[in-house]
Amino acid sequence: MKTIDVNCDMGESFGPYTIGQDEAVFAYISSANIACGYHGGDHNVMRKTLEQAQRHGVAAGAHPGLPDLLGFGRRKMEVNPEDVFNMTVYQIGALQAFASISGISLQHVKPHGALFNMACIDDGLAQAIAEAVAQVDSGLVLFGLAGSKLVQAGRKAGLQVAEEVFADRTYQPDGSLTPRTDPNAQVEDPDEAAYRVIRMVKEGKAEAVDGSTFPIQADTVCVHGDSPQALAFVKKLAQAFKEQDIQIKKVKEDWPTESKC
Amino acid sequence: MKTIDVNCDMGESFGPYTIGQDEAVFAYISSANIACGYHGGDHNVMRKTLEQAQRHGVAAGAHPGLPDLLGFGRRKMEVNPEDVFNMTVYQIGALQAFASISGISLQHVKPHGALFNMACIDDGLAQAIAEAVAQVDSGLVLFGLAGSKLVQAGRKAGLQVAEEVFADRTYQPDGSLTPRTDPNAQVEDPDEAAYRVIRMVKEGKAEAVDGSTFPIQADTVCVHGDSPQALAFVKKLAQAFKEQDIQIKKVKEDWPTESKC
Amino acid sequence: MKTIDVNCDMGESFGPYTIGQDEAVFAYISSANIACGYHGGDHNVMRKTLEQAQRHGVAAGAHPGLPDLLGFGRRKMEVNPEDVFNMTVYQIGALQAFASISGISLQHVKPHGALFNMACIDDGLAQAIAEAVAQVDSGLVLFGLAGSKLVQAGRKAGLQVAEEVFADRTYQPDGSLTPRTDPNAQVEDPDEAAYRVIRMVKEGKAEAVDGSTFPIQADTVCVHGDSPQALAFVKKLAQAFKEQDIQIKKVKEDWPTESKC
Amino acid sequence: MKTIDVNCDMGESFGPYTIGQDEAVFAYISSANIACGYHGGDHNVMRKTLEQAQRHGVAAGAHPGLPDLLGFGRRKMEVNPEDVFNMTVYQIGALQAFASISGISLQHVKPHGALFNMACIDDGLAQAIAEAVAQVDSGLVLFGLAGSKLVQAGRKAGLQVAEEVFADRTYQPDGSLTPRTDPNAQVEDPDEAAYRVIRMVKEGKAEAVDGSTFPIQADTVCVHGDSPQALAFVKKLAQAFKEQDIQIKKVKEDWPTESKC
Repeated sequence: MKTIDVNCDMGESFGPYTIGQDEAVFAYISSANIACGYHGGDHNVMRKTLEQAQRHGVAAGAHPGLPDLLGFGRRKMEVNPEDVFNMTVYQIGALQAFASISGISLQHVKPHGALFNMACIDDGLAQAIAEAVAQVDSGLVLFGLAGSKLVQAGRKAGLQVAEEVFADRTYQPDGSLTPRTDPNAQVEDPDEAAYRVIRMVKEGKAEAVDGSTFPIQADTVCVHGDSPQALAFVKKLAQAFKEQDIQIKKVKEDWPTESKC
Repeated sequence: MKTIDVNCDMGESFGPYTIGQDEAVFAYISSANIACGYHGGDHNVMRKTLEQAQRHGVAAGAHPGLPDLLGFGRRKMEVNPEDVFNMTVYQIGALQAFASISGISLQHVKPHGALFNMACIDDGLAQAIAEAVAQVDSGLVLFGLAGSKLVQAGRKAGLQVAEEVFADRTYQPDGSLTPRTDPNAQVEDPDEAAYRVIRMVKEGKAEAVDGSTFPIQADTVCVHGDSPQALAFVKKLAQAFKEQDIQIKKVKEDWPTESKC
Repeated sequence: MKTIDVNCDMGESFGPYTIGQDEAVFAYISSANIACGYHGGDHNVMRKTLEQAQRHGVAAGAHPGLPDLLGFGRRKMEVNPEDVFNMTVYQIGALQAFASISGISLQHVKPHGALFNMACIDDGLAQAIAEAVAQVDSGLVLFGLAGSKLVQAGRKAGLQVAEEVFADRTYQPDGSLTPRTDPNAQVEDPDEAAYRVIRMVKEGKAEAVDGSTFPIQADTVCVHGDSPQALAFVKKLAQAFKEQDIQIKKVKEDWPTESKC
Repeated sequence: MKTIDVNCDMGESFGPYTIGQDEAVFAYISSANIACGYHGGDHNVMRKTLEQAQRHGVAAGAHPGLPDLLGFGRRKMEVNPEDVFNMTVYQIGALQAFASISGISLQHVKPHGALFNMACIDDGLAQAIAEAVAQVDSGLVLFGLAGSKLVQAGRKAGLQVAEEVFADRTYQPDGSLTPRTDPNAQVEDPDEAAYRVIRMVKEGKAEAVDGSTFPIQADTVCVHGDSPQALAFVKKLAQAFKEQDIQIKKVKEDWPTESKC
């Protein structure tokens, strides 16, 4: 039976501000990328989100971002590898402490927004993140865009990696995502999106915007839940996977809900 | 032979801003309270400061503060125990990750500024901090004002505690510090200050402003190094301890420079 | 014909985070208290909110708060009058610049949250705010809790003041608000709330929790619009005012939509 | 008699953190670029710095930066023209309010760090800043790198501009600054630096790294005062100007120390 992990960004609320529909989304995913206070999230939200993940049996991971709450970590910033290494260590560590007191350990790390995008194409930043993850806990799985520098750096650092695919985005023939500025960057139709991911899982192939296909490894698929449509999309995808006998499954089979510390 | 730990706040620089004379002070102390990014410090400074501590053989501890960089964590804020618990977990965790990659583990936790002051007199906050420390790592030593609610809460939570005394501050007959607003709050003369601490260590007694004495346990003495005078004060104190056969010693004898993880 | 101003906090969204239902509320109020980036709001939100106010013919005012986004400016902090003076000047100035480019001038200043609460009972802070407002623009109206130190300080500083009443809160016999921690602090029933404000406007009297009455001047009533119920409450109040021939009117009759600069 | 303005970044301290030797530098400059709380500075520092400028008879200007205290506004960030317009308005407005209560008006605006660098080569950002300045107060002078997009945008927006030259940096034949990453980017020798600026002022010519010369307009020269060497450099420059009968003079001759409001 084919399997895929379904991951979603979670815990990005901050102080008085709520964002996302976390509680509703938890039912449809297997891995939660939990914000760590730099681009979103705060110490109270982190604890609450970890407890939600635990309750839902969803694997928890760190979602480190750039120090830019105003821009939600989505704006590229000039950062060097040393700085990125340290901000990654800091954020994973903060979440690890909450995981530890909740009696779980973290499954994975997925960088957020601009940090993710930059690390997928920049060797130095990719390596900084992979090294940070490996040094903090070599048992953590590193999530990165399928085929990107980030997954390469993760393997080189000795980490288990999860190649990530996007259901709602189109691809270029070289395997990169079509930039959002492009009119056909998005896949709006949930059925079409589900079909694409199912093909990636079953055949290991993705179709590019020019109709060509290329090989792709789909370990995990990224979903969003920050609007009613987004939530409907997630449900649709879960339904489609079920119909196609694709099992939604964490990337780390033996992910413990009991802390190893 | 009598012993005492000498602790100092460290790593409070931030981004482009330098504060303190950390490198010079490390030679005279046994425990460093390292800022964790809330009232001061950042992810780059934290890593550098841990490496300095390691190089100097100084025990490293977390120095969590209120989320108030502008006020340097020195302004009281209305915070509830749950919030304090979570901010303490977050900050310890962030520093632990850096300690772990540096191959050391943390020795202690000392809250900073207003958080320290509030927790020394408020049962709820004291307990929140003690619980946070105990749940994150029950091997950590909790630093608190000698005789305060904070050390009581630490003991109740099953933690080793270090009762802290101040060389440059005067005491009230009830063992509390004379408020800074009082003209005779400070001990300006280094010889006088050294004499006072030596008496606390050797006799277990402190003299209050009214001339009365009260029992005090001096496990660790707090020093500052943020000015040329402050640094001279630290040197003087170290010299006086030497002359009086008082050994400067970490609070945790078996504090490992090798990580236990 | 009796009149009253209806004011509401606006523009408290921040970066990716939305809070409040500003666009819906604008239809029912006469004065908007616009956040200035310290407790909420940012430079983009400020501009957009001023444009909304202008479009709705609602008078715009500055809503300076404590520098505490995480706590939304609702946590008391230890601040001194000089600091409060300066943070008030800063925030009014920032909003004034946007008002100026939008071709309007500000009508009023209402401090936010904990800053408001502290200034209503502390002479020094009240005076700092009143002086800041007066020095920046002596034509601004200062909003403060009816009968509070803040309105007294405003008058002393030569400012026009607006005494503010609350529809959804109960009062103590001395004219102070019943603390939120008290079970009967809130007025849940919109009809009851409307009745109370109408009595204040028409008779100049408020009823305290013990049934006694005391004189009150109701220049402006504070409403909230951050939930469906809150919005329904605002509509109900507007309807009740209409039925009772109470006209909703800005506190400054000659408030110019054209900039005076 | 030839004249030149000497400008320096000022008021970049923050809360407990001091940076720069402002008080010493004021004696040697004619224009102060005052940080506005985004990359450095805070409401208390802004007020103090304006008072210092006033005391020294130095013209005050706003020094808006990117919202990045950790990176001191020196890191490029992905910002769009609308965002830059608004952040510029906000920061100028905040400083204007302090100027107004100090009885002065602002002379100029000089963007800081990465915002300055980006605006000097990007039409959209240059125009956003120029428009923001013009709309807030069309009497303000816009400072920009000599020959850059920023000065062009300023002129197009109808502003008086000041073309800025650097004493301690070398130039490329096209008039751009040699990137800091280049080994010969800096002019270390103060005499050499003074000679270069004097030539720019007297002959309207600058020498590039390849020995070629190009025309340059030197309205204002940027100096730094954040180290003992930097301060010595400033003094040397002032001395050289004196010997060469070049008068240090504000860019706006009629700059009022009395507020025009």
